[in-house]
Amino acid sequence: MASSEFELINKYFKNLTDDDSSVQCGIGDDAAIVHIPHDMEVALSIDTLLEGTHFPAETQPSDIAYKALAVNLSDMAAMGAVPKWVLLSISLPEKDEDWLEKFVSGFLELAKPHSINLIGGDLSRGPLSITVQIQGLLPTGSALKRNGARKDDLIYVTGTLGDAGVGLDIMNGKLSIRGKHKMFFLNSLNRPYISIDAGIRLRNIANSAIDISDGLMADLGHILDASHVGAEIEMEKIPLSEAMQKCIDKMTAWDYALTFGDDYKLCFTAPAEKHDLIIKAFKEIRITVSCIGKITGENGLNCTGSEGTFFEPSGSPYQHF
Amino acid sequence: MASSEFELINKYFKNLTDDDSSVQCGIGDDAAIVHIPHDMEVALSIDTLLEGTHFPAETQPSDIAYKALAVNLSDMAAMGAVPKWVLLSISLPEKDEDWLEKFVSGFLELAKPHSINLIGGDLSRGPLSITVQIQGLLPTGSALKRNGARKDDLIYVTGTLGDAGVGLDIMNGKLSIRGKHKMFFLNSLNRPYISIDAGIRLRNIANSAIDISDGLMADLGHILDASHVGAEIEMEKIPLSEAMQKCIDKMTAWDYALTFGDDYKLCFTAPAEKHDLIIKAFKEIRITVSCIGKITGENGLNCTGSEGTFFEPSGSPYQHF
Repeated sequence: MASSEFELINKYFKNLTDDDSSVQCGIGDDAAIVHIPHDMEVALSIDTLLEGTHFPAETQPSDIAYKALAVNLSDMAAMGAVPKWVLLSISLPEKDEDWLEKFVSGFLELAKPHSINLIGGDLSRGPLSITVQIQGLLPTGSALKRNGARKDDLIYVTGTLGDAGVGLDIMNGKLSIRGKHKMFFLNSLNRPYISIDAGIRLRNIANSAIDISDGLMADLGHILDASHVGAEIEMEKIPLSEAMQKCIDKMTAWDYALTFGDDYKLCFTAPAEKHDLIIKAFKEIRITVSCIGKITGENGLNCTGSEGTFFEPSGSPYQHF
Repeated sequence: MASSEFELINKYFKNLTDDDSSVQCGIGDDAAIVHIPHDMEVALSIDTLLEGTHFPAETQPSDIAYKALAVNLSDMAAMGAVPKWVLLSISLPEKDEDWLEKFVSGFLELAKPHSINLIGGDLSRGPLSITVQIQGLLPTGSALKRNGARKDDLIYVTGTLGDAGVGLDIMNGKLSIRGKHKMFFLNSLNRPYISIDAGIRLRNIANSAIDISDGLMADLGHILDASHVGAEIEMEKIPLSEAMQKCIDKMTAWDYALTFGDDYKLCFTAPAEKHDLIIKAFKEIRITVSCIGKITGENGLNCTGSEGTFFEPSGSPYQHF
């Protein structure tokens, strides 16, 4: 029976993933040591998920692990980086090996196909929280930043928006939806699909990019602030899933898309002359992409509804504090 | 008045430290981007400090910040790496700008002299916890690992041991000590002194190294396990501070040194022929270093007391779980 932090780490977290010759020292020393190819830069991100704040208490350990890794992968995708190594810090209320086993299985479900190595971390007793810190690589100078949007850029998003928000309201008991649509929404919340390929394809094409973690309004807002520009969004062009169109009225769906978080799709801007290139690139990697508006020279974000009227969401953007 | 995570981060955490041309992208994007010199490797470590588990609830925010960074610096020192960049994830029960201001001041007290840049992080509402994730650099192939101890290596520690343990017992009300000694012990707990120079000097000299975070017995034990060797320690050679010798009887002092955590001194092993080199190197950087025993071919750790008798500490090593 494993008893100490070190025994639990050795039992559940060591040697999880494939050999990686760039890892000179992995789990089990004071620090991990990795080697970086000389023409590459390192992208670094950290995200903490807290029970009750970032996921409901009844979330499965495998879903928590999957999502904790996914939100970090999403940051890598938004920079155009390829994720390589993660450090993991877990705080767990009690020694619960069943929980750890399920957590590891969910983690591997996403880490394996992306060939991500777990190279270090720690495990403490305390309120449930998961911190994933990720390293990715990208060719020097190719990072997709938030501050590069230019007037007349077109604005794009990948996938469909708002589905995770519906999933959260189902979990919280605010919405009652049944059958396959319910599963779709819950899956959108717990198992967001991250396309690293999308970020890679956008290098040298997009002027700016961000992942949508706090709702389109807040996250596009970060691009606008960083780039000192404004934007016009045509709400009819916001991509909505089939389930969303079937289960939720349009105005409410737009609210979910604009102000609910957790979608982890990409929002990016690019000059209009790149449009055909973008459509072709995303077709090749089978990721849907939608042009939803354009960057303007005036500050602020305007959303126009069905008949050219101004649309204002009824919800507020997600606040971390 | 700052209100959101982003406003709080911009107000308290952005532009904290000096310009660093190796940081291509810092706080305020999906990920930070750093450039690594081509002959260097990256050392990575993460540590979470939880209120109640890793520090008493009454600990000052500036001390929490100082220590959260110090324990990560200690990991860098133990690998022979030079700390460069940190990511910081904070969970705070409520928006408390006074707390954040004090936290930042404690963080800078240690980050500034080490020229460490804060390049990213997140801030959430939840039970008080601080995660620092650190990146350091070291010349390729020069890392000090735990698994290199050889039979007949001499065993060394830096500084004095056990002082932080006394500090913790003072804070917890288990010990009553007054005046300057009390301050010394509390300072040892809250403001551990980390020597990055010590780790740098040990490159190409030490066969193995670790930082003492869980007490000498547990941490030397990790070296022994990883290197498949044993050790003999002469307790009379364990370095004890003047305050320890004045306030605590010897047997109890040895207990603190062997089984209490939080000292953040280095323990390392090196061949006997390097002894003079080690003494000279540590004299140059004004760090005390003590030879406390030697590595043996037999498994296990033997501690001999004053008259060659076997010494067994009465406490158990610190358990994270």
